[in-house]
Amino acid sequence: MEHQENLTAYVAAFVAELVNTGVRDVVISPGSRSTPIAMVMAEHPDLRVHIHIDERSAAFFALGIAKSLRKPVAVLCTSGTAAANYYPAIIEAYYSRVPLIVLTADRPHELRDAGAPQAIDQIHLFGKHVKWFVEMAPPEKTDEMIRYARSVCARAAAIALRSPSGPVHLNFPFREPLVPNIGKEDLFDLNVRPDGYVSVETGKLALSEEKYEELAGILSRSDKGIIVCGPLDDEFFAENITKLASALNFPILADPLSQLRSGKHSKDFIIDAYDTFLRNSDCKKALKPDIIIRFGAMPVSKALSNFIKENIDIPQFVIDGGAGWRDPAAAAYMIHCNETEFCKSIAKYVEKKNQHPFLDKWLEINDLTKTKLSKINETEELSEGKLIYQLSDLIPDGATLFVGNSMPIRDLDTFFHVTDKSIRIMANRGANGIDGIISTAIGAASVLQPLYLIVGDLTFFHDLNGLLAVKLYNINIKILLVNNNGGGIFSFLPQASEPKNFELLFGTPIDLNFEHAVRMYNGKFDKITSWDQFKSSFLKNMDNCGLSVMEISTARDRNVLEHRELWNYVSREISNKLNGVS
Amino acid sequence: MEHQENLTAYVAAFVAELVNTGVRDVVISPGSRSTPIAMVMAEHPDLRVHIHIDERSAAFFALGIAKSLRKPVAVLCTSGTAAANYYPAIIEAYYSRVPLIVLTADRPHELRDAGAPQAIDQIHLFGKHVKWFVEMAPPEKTDEMIRYARSVCARAAAIALRSPSGPVHLNFPFREPLVPNIGKEDLFDLNVRPDGYVSVETGKLALSEEKYEELAGILSRSDKGIIVCGPLDDEFFAENITKLASALNFPILADPLSQLRSGKHSKDFIIDAYDTFLRNSDCKKALKPDIIIRFGAMPVSKALSNFIKENIDIPQFVIDGGAGWRDPAAAAYMIHCNETEFCKSIAKYVEKKNQHPFLDKWLEINDLTKTKLSKINETEELSEGKLIYQLSDLIPDGATLFVGNSMPIRDLDTFFHVTDKSIRIMANRGANGIDGIISTAIGAASVLQPLYLIVGDLTFFHDLNGLLAVKLYNINIKILLVNNNGGGIFSFLPQASEPKNFELLFGTPIDLNFEHAVRMYNGKFDKITSWDQFKSSFLKNMDNCGLSVMEISTARDRNVLEHRELWNYVSREISNKLNGVS
Repeated sequence: MEHQENLTAYVAAFVAELVNTGVRDVVISPGSRSTPIAMVMAEHPDLRVHIHIDERSAAFFALGIAKSLRKPVAVLCTSGTAAANYYPAIIEAYYSRVPLIVLTADRPHELRDAGAPQAIDQIHLFGKHVKWFVEMAPPEKTDEMIRYARSVCARAAAIALRSPSGPVHLNFPFREPLVPNIGKEDLFDLNVRPDGYVSVETGKLALSEEKYEELAGILSRSDKGIIVCGPLDDEFFAENITKLASALNFPILADPLSQLRSGKHSKDFIIDAYDTFLRNSDCKKALKPDIIIRFGAMPVSKALSNFIKENIDIPQFVIDGGAGWRDPAAAAYMIHCNETEFCKSIAKYVEKKNQHPFLDKWLEINDLTKTKLSKINETEELSEGKLIYQLSDLIPDGATLFVGNSMPIRDLDTFFHVTDKSIRIMANRGANGIDGIISTAIGAASVLQPLYLIVGDLTFFHDLNGLLAVKLYNINIKILLVNNNGGGIFSFLPQASEPKNFELLFGTPIDLNFEHAVRMYNGKFDKITSWDQFKSSFLKNMDNCGLSVMEISTARDRNVLEHRELWNYVSREISNKLNGVS
Repeated sequence: MEHQENLTAYVAAFVAELVNTGVRDVVISPGSRSTPIAMVMAEHPDLRVHIHIDERSAAFFALGIAKSLRKPVAVLCTSGTAAANYYPAIIEAYYSRVPLIVLTADRPHELRDAGAPQAIDQIHLFGKHVKWFVEMAPPEKTDEMIRYARSVCARAAAIALRSPSGPVHLNFPFREPLVPNIGKEDLFDLNVRPDGYVSVETGKLALSEEKYEELAGILSRSDKGIIVCGPLDDEFFAENITKLASALNFPILADPLSQLRSGKHSKDFIIDAYDTFLRNSDCKKALKPDIIIRFGAMPVSKALSNFIKENIDIPQFVIDGGAGWRDPAAAAYMIHCNETEFCKSIAKYVEKKNQHPFLDKWLEINDLTKTKLSKINETEELSEGKLIYQLSDLIPDGATLFVGNSMPIRDLDTFFHVTDKSIRIMANRGANGIDGIISTAIGAASVLQPLYLIVGDLTFFHDLNGLLAVKLYNINIKILLVNNNGGGIFSFLPQASEPKNFELLFGTPIDLNFEHAVRMYNGKFDKITSWDQFKSSFLKNMDNCGLSVMEISTARDRNVLEHRELWNYVSREISNKLNGVS
């Protein structure tokens, strides 16, 4: 009984403290060794327990919730390879700066590295991809060890959250018997400091006023500055970067994940077609900046990355509140400072100029590009590019749009332009994998509604298991499945110039009729064959509950041709304009 | 061009050497960064290239091939989380001692930890779960670097294979452009030592003759010795352990994965019902040994593990040619020596006794237990226990039986008894996960035919994606899907005594109609409703190509009752026998 009392008190204190730190969601995968924490969590009135059988999907599901809430979510699994299945989501969380609290149960010390069943070496299991690892002490209910459990818990949540946010990993050794005493009425009563054992206040990185003033001076003296905003998720950023841009008369090159292309803030300075016009060398010459300020992660656009790299002769500043080093071009001066505070502080010292020819040139080319790009809407065939236009028309204000990697995020970058609707755009751009996208989107959909997901067929296949959550929890999600039967992005790469083995190694058609899978998860499946049908299907599904999948079949070879012809056409038009040919 | 020449020569030398080491199978997941190796591998006439989209399934598929062939298989993927998906299979390979050569492509040094897309920290990505990690040098075609590439490759294969076998990880930094020059006619021509740059001869662990003689003396003096054989995969072991047992008059407690319950060797000393009768304390008293010799990994049976732990007062020897420490009871003297050589060498020094009452008692109780256990065959309802009897009757000689973890392997332990058929029994018992079972079995089925897989519904669900390989490569596999709609094993554990939240946390019904998934992969699906139908379905499917799934639906609560009643009944019968009640 003493064992059970130790176990129960220690775990209950930990779980109570977890709730104190603000955690409300936990994703549990069934297992035996994790029984003490799972059973105690299920007792807590303020925790939402989500069950997911496949730990890989479970961790991505948790990631989706954490991204949406911008606060830590816990995952729990048993010992052995269960935990190893978390690895892809943990790495994604690490690089995309999403707070996760990873709890793994482990065999006690005497059963480790001794051939005991389901025992693997879980110490530092996730290597350098967690911000903090703790091998927890075996459960005890002394005051000291209760304080320890609560204190580690509070620290874990604070570390996960503080900038740059990321995953932490706590490993719990549990001895049998594993069943705690959940019958206790005062299970979660905490003797001391019931509202939180340790509080952690973490400031934001800020520069001195002198430094802000100095930087504002440098920026003010530039006539040809540009702002580049990559993926960034700070709800106060849009308003403040817009004000700074307005003060400086700098255009803002806004990645779709910067959250700047949609929303209620001013879009007057937003450049959203650069991925197309920065492919044109005349254009790159005409728009050459004398200074670049960057925020957020590296943008999706390769044309923009190249542009940044080609301009290493000018000063480039990277502002990063997470004190990272997001600069593959090795070109930047690093400014480790909270992004929103930076905008506010710099704006104070900037004097607005009346003339802004450089900005105007950017805006003019951006407008021209968008006008010409919209030619794709004339196509009657199903097209991956036109789909983004259609989607951006139809998607309701306030919706969340989750975007798969490889082609969908690139097409979004090219074809999704500014809108006054508020559309939160999400993707997994930490490591850019095609894994776990379904689960991350479903996790997000459990918080944000309505939610639309656009993915290719390989991405859809990779995380089919993720759909289980929709069925178990009646989560609403609308999936636009762009099925080009294989890896569409490779057709855009140099690999495509070697036809021998191309389909084997890169095209990789899998010829699956996904309708079967969608039916298994009780979903609705619409095979789209025309734009009219797409529109009516989209509108019909708008108020659906559960899973709706609209499959748009396209052809990889036609798709690459369509993109290239369009880019070439727009490029010619831009060159004509720049060279004065009407 | 110099870049492409460096890349091509370096990678081609590596791949040519890989084939020299005996590798014939490589499992590739599509990606861009891995292009140089993938394209060169596809050119090699002696390599079988298998494509698998989901890297988690890909690595388990490779594991299945490697287990079956007992030689290294290579896996290849691109940079980023793709590689992290390998982690569960790598851990399983590490603990189950299966040779894998893990090849990951990576960004070059200048794009690491600098925000470049799809770049994660791949150095020591798999931590302590690989035997060797090498960060490869960037490609160069100098003689020295070609020798380096070949030498590392040869070492990697040798390290993966040498006892204890396991995974190794080589990480390749590749710069763009990534397409090699595969048009070269002499792509795989090696200037020096064309049949293998480095040869590695690794001996087996062997004791001195004096030590063998001393140990033989100790064993010979025992009247009540037993041999325990856990999971072990050495094709010469069965014959030699049987001879040793016969010399010593020791019973052999043979785990189903010891490969001793079936085959052409003598079964006279095999005890195969211990998992049932060692639950009985009268029996454990009557059968108390004075010495234990163990081979292989820890057996599946918890009753046997307990029996080992309860006998720490007697000498226990663990023979391990992989020099591990497989002894969670902390009870054993370790003998690090090749198992087959040990049997041969000891047998030479043993003098056979004519009296063997202790052995006879074991055999008698074993026989009684099996007679009584077979009562389960009287049940007309579908039953997980009876299924094993039926399967063992119907399975053709020469087949391979792959067994899922949790309940199937335990039921096999209880109900699969000696047979003269040669049935190779396989399972993933390194870390005992429910992940990757489908893919491992399909990998095995690509080598060994016919192959039967028996799994529960959660295991089937966890690796549904693995079924893609069956469709892409027309691999034949027959799956017995025991669908009790959730985690059947938990009903046997103390967790089941707390009904509140039991179904939520442990029962976890997922209510999927798997027929949809089977159809998606072009499989045949039979829903079994009676034993007659099971038999006819089994016989009808015997010569099927591709995927055949027979679903046997059972009830978790009825199943646990059936097992308990049977064990109690047999236990009473044994006690009656031991106490002289007829």
